[in-house]
Amino acid sequence: MNYKRLFIALMAVLTSSICQAQTNSPIKEDFQPSTFNQPGQAYPQVNSQGYARFKIKALKADSIRVSLGLGGRGGTKLTKDAEGYFTGTTEGPMDEGFHYYHLTVDGGVFNDPGTGNFYGSTRWESGIEIPAHDKDFYAMKDVPHGNVQQILFPSKSTNTPGRRAFVYTPPGYEKGNTRYPVLYLQHGWGEDETAWSVQGHANLIMDNLIADGKAKPFIIVMTYGLTNNVRPGAGGPRTPGGLTKMILENGFQTVLVDELIPYVDSHFRTYGDKAHRAMAGLSMGGMETHVITLAKPEVFDYYGLLSGGVYTPSELGKIKPKLVFMSCGSKENPAGVNSAAVELKSAGYNTVAYISEGTAHEFLTWRRSLKELAPLLFK
Amino acid sequence: MNYKRLFIALMAVLTSSICQAQTNSPIKEDFQPSTFNQPGQAYPQVNSQGYARFKIKALKADSIRVSLGLGGRGGTKLTKDAEGYFTGTTEGPMDEGFHYYHLTVDGGVFNDPGTGNFYGSTRWESGIEIPAHDKDFYAMKDVPHGNVQQILFPSKSTNTPGRRAFVYTPPGYEKGNTRYPVLYLQHGWGEDETAWSVQGHANLIMDNLIADGKAKPFIIVMTYGLTNNVRPGAGGPRTPGGLTKMILENGFQTVLVDELIPYVDSHFRTYGDKAHRAMAGLSMGGMETHVITLAKPEVFDYYGLLSGGVYTPSELGKIKPKLVFMSCGSKENPAGVNSAAVELKSAGYNTVAYISEGTAHEFLTWRRSLKELAPLLFK
Repeated sequence: MNYKRLFIALMAVLTSSICQAQTNSPIKEDFQPSTFNQPGQAYPQVNSQGYARFKIKALKADSIRVSLGLGGRGGTKLTKDAEGYFTGTTEGPMDEGFHYYHLTVDGGVFNDPGTGNFYGSTRWESGIEIPAHDKDFYAMKDVPHGNVQQILFPSKSTNTPGRRAFVYTPPGYEKGNTRYPVLYLQHGWGEDETAWSVQGHANLIMDNLIADGKAKPFIIVMTYGLTNNVRPGAGGPRTPGGLTKMILENGFQTVLVDELIPYVDSHFRTYGDKAHRAMAGLSMGGMETHVITLAKPEVFDYYGLLSGGVYTPSELGKIKPKLVFMSCGSKENPAGVNSAAVELKSAGYNTVAYISEGTAHEFLTWRRSLKELAPLLFK
Repeated sequence: MNYKRLFIALMAVLTSSICQAQTNSPIKEDFQPSTFNQPGQAYPQVNSQGYARFKIKALKADSIRVSLGLGGRGGTKLTKDAEGYFTGTTEGPMDEGFHYYHLTVDGGVFNDPGTGNFYGSTRWESGIEIPAHDKDFYAMKDVPHGNVQQILFPSKSTNTPGRRAFVYTPPGYEKGNTRYPVLYLQHGWGEDETAWSVQGHANLIMDNLIADGKAKPFIIVMTYGLTNNVRPGAGGPRTPGGLTKMILENGFQTVLVDELIPYVDSHFRTYGDKAHRAMAGLSMGGMETHVITLAKPEVFDYYGLLSGGVYTPSELGKIKPKLVFMSCGSKENPAGVNSAAVELKSAGYNTVAYISEGTAHEFLTWRRSLKELAPLLFK
C-alpha cells in the first residue's frame, strides 16, 4: 500500500479551491432562495448563473465576510446598507451543487441565520445549494420512498452503549421476507454520519434509481468514521502522521467490521456475506475504504473510492473484488483516477472510473458518483 | 369546545418565563461543557448549581448578549476580555433541563458556535442542557435501542410527494410478526418533527421504560404540525384568530388522519384500530390533539395534552376515551390541570394529571410527561 501516493492524492484534493469562472455577462436578477434555507427565510439566494447573494441583519456590526468566493481572496465581503443590513454577491458564479460556508462577523465565526446547518469541517456549518443542470436525479419525486433509520448500536471498543449510524432501507423493505445486499458508505474528514443523507441526498438518489429500474434495491449504512480515540480536528489528514493515525490507529475498522456489521446483519434482513457487501467512501472515507478493504478482503466484494485516492494492481495482488470504482470531480485529479483505472483494467481487475464534469472536492461530485456506482453493485 | 379557555391556558404558558431562583450561595467553579455541545467545544458550560457560562470569540465585536437569563432583563450580557473573548455567567441558576437560546452580536441574531442547533421559535436555535437530578430516565444506557426512522409519505392535500415524519420503532420490532400500537406525538409551536427525538429524547425514554418493563413496546410517529397553507410564524398562536387558523384551517387534521395514519398502517406492523391508537402533543401540539381527538373520536382512544390545555366533561360528552392525560410544569398552570382532572374524574372519565416539579414551559416538563404517559397507554 502506497501511503505517500495516497497522501499526495489527498493533498491535491484538499488544496483544490472552489473555482469560479470569470464571466463578462451581466448578473441576472433572477435570484431565488437557496433550497436549503430555513423555513420562511429569503436569503441566501442564488441566480440562474450560479451567483450567490447574502443578506444579514446586524445593525451595529462593522464587518461581515462570507467564506464563499474566489479562492485565495478571503471570500465575499458584505457591505452595509442604510438600514443596517449587510449584503453582497459573489464575484463570480459558483460551481453547481452544495457548498459549506460560514460568516465572520466582527472577527467571530458564526453561521448564516438564513440557512440550515450541515456538519462539515468538524463543526455545524452553513450550506447553500447552487441548482445543478442535472439536479433531477436527486430531486424529491412522486415515487416510493425508502426510510432512513437512526440506529444506536453497542460499541464496546469505544465504550459507547449506543453509537449512531443511519440505515437507508429501500422502498418495499417493510414488506415480505426478502434479503438485501448492503453498501457501507462513509463521509469525509470533518463530516459525520449525517452527511450522506442530508447534503448528499443518498436516499433520494436511491429512491429515484430504484423507481427507474436502474439499481437493485439495497441497504446503505452510514456511520461516523472516527472514534473516541481520535478527537475530530486533532491532527487531521493534513500531515502524513495524522492520516496514518486516523485510518489505522483510530479503531474505526474495529467499530465497522467487528461491531456495526454484525449488528446490521442481525437486525436487518441482509445476506450477511462478502458477495452482498460493498464499501465506499468520499475523501477520507475513500481512504478508509482503501485501507479496510485491503486489510479485510474477506468482508467486502465491491470497493468505491470517491475523491479518495486509487488502488494499484500491486496492492490488490490476489484480491479480486467484483468491482473497483474510482471517481473524482474534473477539477480534482481526473488524470490520476483515469490512469489508475487503465492500469487496473490491464491487470485484469473489473474497474470503472467516473469523472464528474465541472465539479471539485464537493458534494455534487459525490452525489453523481453514487448515482454512477449504485447501478454497478450486486449485479 | 371552549376556545376562550384554551386561549387563556395558552397565554398562561407562553408568558411563563424561564424562572431562576435567586441564591445567596457562591457560584461553584465546577463548570462542565453542556452535553449538547458540538464535538470538541468547551463552551457553553453548566455547573452543578445550574448556572450557565458562555464564551464567544469575536475579536472586533462591541457587544454580545445571550438570550438566556432572568426574565424581563434581556438575558445575559457578556463582557469582553483582553484577548477578545466575550464571557459571562447567568445571574442565577437556570431551571433543570433543555433551553433554547441565541446570541445578539452587534445587533444581529446568531447561534452560539459552541453548541448544536435545535428547531424552535420557527428557526434553528442554540440549545443548552442543565443536568436534571432525574436525568437517568432519558440517559443513553446499555439496553436494547429502538430505531428512529425518517419516512417520506405522499401528501396530496399539501402537494408534497414526500412529507417527512419520524417513526420510533421499539427494540425487537425488526424480529417476528408482532403488531404494535401507535402514539402520534406532536411538537409545539415554532418547533418541528425533529423536536421529540432530539431535544425530547423520546426514543431513549422509551428504550429505558421498555427495558425496565414499565411500558408496553409501541410505535411513536412524529410529524410536522403545520402545513404549507400556514407559513410558520404567520399569525402564530399569539392571537385567538391565529390559534383557530392554525389548528382548524391549516389542514393538519387532513394530513394526519387521511394521509399519515393510512401510510403508517400500511408500512408498519400496526393494529390499525382506535383501541391501539393514541394522540398526544406538547403546547400547540396539545391543542391540536384536543381539537382533532374531539373532531375524530373514532380514530384515537388515548388523549394526552402536555402543557396544552385541558378537556372538559361538556366537550367530551358521550366520547369515552380509555385515557385522558393532562400535564404541565409546576411553574405553568398546575391548578388548572389539577382542577380539570378533578372535574373529569367526577364525571366518570378515566383521567390522569401530572405536574412536573420545578419546571416551566420547556422540554424537561415534556420528557417527564412522556415518561408518565407511556406506561398508561395500551394496557
